[in-house]
Amino acid sequence: MDHRLQTILDRIQPLDAVAQEHARARQDMLTKPRGSMGRLEALSVQLAGIYGQPLPAIQHKVIVTMAGDHGVVAEGVSAYPQEVTPQMVYNFLRGGAAINVLARHVGARVVVVDMGVAADLEAHPDLIVKKVAHGTENIARGPAMTQEQAVQALLAGVEVVEQQIARGLDIVGTGDMGIANTTPSAAIALAMTGRAAADIVGRGTGVDDAGLARKVATVEQAVSVNRPDPQNALDVLTKVGGYEIAGIAGVILGAAANHRPAVIDGFISTAAAMIAVGLAPQVRPYLVAAHCSQEKGHRIMLEWLGLAPLLDLDMRLGEGTGAALGISLAEAACKILAEMATFGEAGVSDKE
Amino acid sequence: MDHRLQTILDRIQPLDAVAQEHARARQDMLTKPRGSMGRLEALSVQLAGIYGQPLPAIQHKVIVTMAGDHGVVAEGVSAYPQEVTPQMVYNFLRGGAAINVLARHVGARVVVVDMGVAADLEAHPDLIVKKVAHGTENIARGPAMTQEQAVQALLAGVEVVEQQIARGLDIVGTGDMGIANTTPSAAIALAMTGRAAADIVGRGTGVDDAGLARKVATVEQAVSVNRPDPQNALDVLTKVGGYEIAGIAGVILGAAANHRPAVIDGFISTAAAMIAVGLAPQVRPYLVAAHCSQEKGHRIMLEWLGLAPLLDLDMRLGEGTGAALGISLAEAACKILAEMATFGEAGVSDKE
Repeated sequence: MDHRLQTILDRIQPLDAVAQEHARARQDMLTKPRGSMGRLEALSVQLAGIYGQPLPAIQHKVIVTMAGDHGVVAEGVSAYPQEVTPQMVYNFLRGGAAINVLARHVGARVVVVDMGVAADLEAHPDLIVKKVAHGTENIARGPAMTQEQAVQALLAGVEVVEQQIARGLDIVGTGDMGIANTTPSAAIALAMTGRAAADIVGRGTGVDDAGLARKVATVEQAVSVNRPDPQNALDVLTKVGGYEIAGIAGVILGAAANHRPAVIDGFISTAAAMIAVGLAPQVRPYLVAAHCSQEKGHRIMLEWLGLAPLLDLDMRLGEGTGAALGISLAEAACKILAEMATFGEAGVSDKE
Repeated sequence: MDHRLQTILDRIQPLDAVAQEHARARQDMLTKPRGSMGRLEALSVQLAGIYGQPLPAIQHKVIVTMAGDHGVVAEGVSAYPQEVTPQMVYNFLRGGAAINVLARHVGARVVVVDMGVAADLEAHPDLIVKKVAHGTENIARGPAMTQEQAVQALLAGVEVVEQQIARGLDIVGTGDMGIANTTPSAAIALAMTGRAAADIVGRGTGVDDAGLARKVATVEQAVSVNRPDPQNALDVLTKVGGYEIAGIAGVILGAAANHRPAVIDGFISTAAAMIAVGLAPQVRPYLVAAHCSQEKGHRIMLEWLGLAPLLDLDMRLGEGTGAALGISLAEAACKILAEMATFGEAGVSDKE
């Protein structure tokens, strides 16, 4: 293991049990029947443990949307052409994409990162360039990248989130953009869960039945050609991953190392979370699963992670759109904990 | 049927199909795979139809939280004493309750209405007094109210929402407060769905097993003693309803009559929605079900209404807390529709 990466992993601590206990005790004093705010109560306790504060306040909300291309697009696994990746990056930078709209709605800023887009992007003051390569190699034929590139991409993700923490970041939502990236994500899920490709592979942006059959075969081929070691997440990432997936895994690890929660978006972000948990199982309690995507294998991946999604709105866009909505629920959970009156303060009679 | 009430019901029009068609067509031009925003897309189309505008914008958000007491509390069906109803009304007015926190979070104002609290409440500039009586009669022994009182409470709800529309209201979320009010709500559900009490009745604020058994027996008794006519929603409301339930039904009807969506909160609000739909089936497309409550029969009631809840967070508080979160999703849906760039505007290639 690269020693810079190992240093990050070693910094990820268990949640603060004392802060969690205080948060739980306060929830029981607030003017509502105990437990009646359901999962928002549990979420507030989790966040208290992550921050190490009994009454955490979420102010600075960030969506990190990472872009990368995939050599496997050559297998005909996507409904859209590869040129859409840079086009959508420009759309993010102009504020016209779904993630921009939802991030504005929840008061989050969007940070756009080029992790490995196949095109050379025009410079833009809001574009962070961490390009490891012009897209991955075709995973149906061989490894996506070298192990050095995988480590470079992971560390770039850590660096991005730490720079944002320096600017102000209390919670990070993960997001992705990359034509064909449900294919490597499915390959990661296949490699790590051992499930059948047919249970994992979905239609992505909307391939037809023939495209879906090609995609299932391609994912199976990627795993059989590369034989990633399911016990070695770095090996899985190297052989069947992607640069934006690696970057997102780095963001998750960097957030946890700095006591910040990571709100996981959909299918691609969840594949990245599996890589992060494979590298460092102690990162798991720092994760919040925003939603269950319509993409087929997502629920299986969330179950492998032991995460219950907050939302289930049949979304399947990525970009961080589900994460943005999840961040708003996390903020609501903290406000419930911090701002509600207690029975004593409000002069309300408790349960008989 | 009272002619003032009939006038309101007659004003509820079908949704605007042209606005919906425009909204649907625009969703398909936005820079995302078609359908990839899932239920938010469908919600935006519904809202376009309600407002009669292809690109609706939600600015003024209101939660109407209606309070009332219930004579059936004498049967020992609640875990909290009746004095909690006025205490929580004061808590709402001071801003310390969960609904205040969540309404602030989503940028909604909270309107608190005394529909039938058993105590005389101190005057407060933000308290709207529409008190029909000091609580209902005990539904286990006879009707909750007279038909005149039911109509008065319904019309009060209409009046409250129309006053708020005059002040600025683009969307209304319903909320309730009333110790023991899951009991009349369950009785309404029992009467209208014909399901068994054991399938409908839950623990409310948290009664123990003995309390739950008492509650099941009480709800069965309320229906067998009063014999409400399931085909006559006004009769159901009169015999086993409540003043805040009637007021909420009035809010729903008044919103729809004025082309405004009503976001339905949990168990009590859904019972009110059943009354509203029973009075005027054409109100149904104006409803948005915010969430599925943990309270037992809620899902059965939502199915009877043909509504799929947006959220499922194991909440069971009422007050409008689920509705507040639902309003935020409705606003997000409209923003997606209005603010996203089209493929043409953004220069993004469409599906191959």
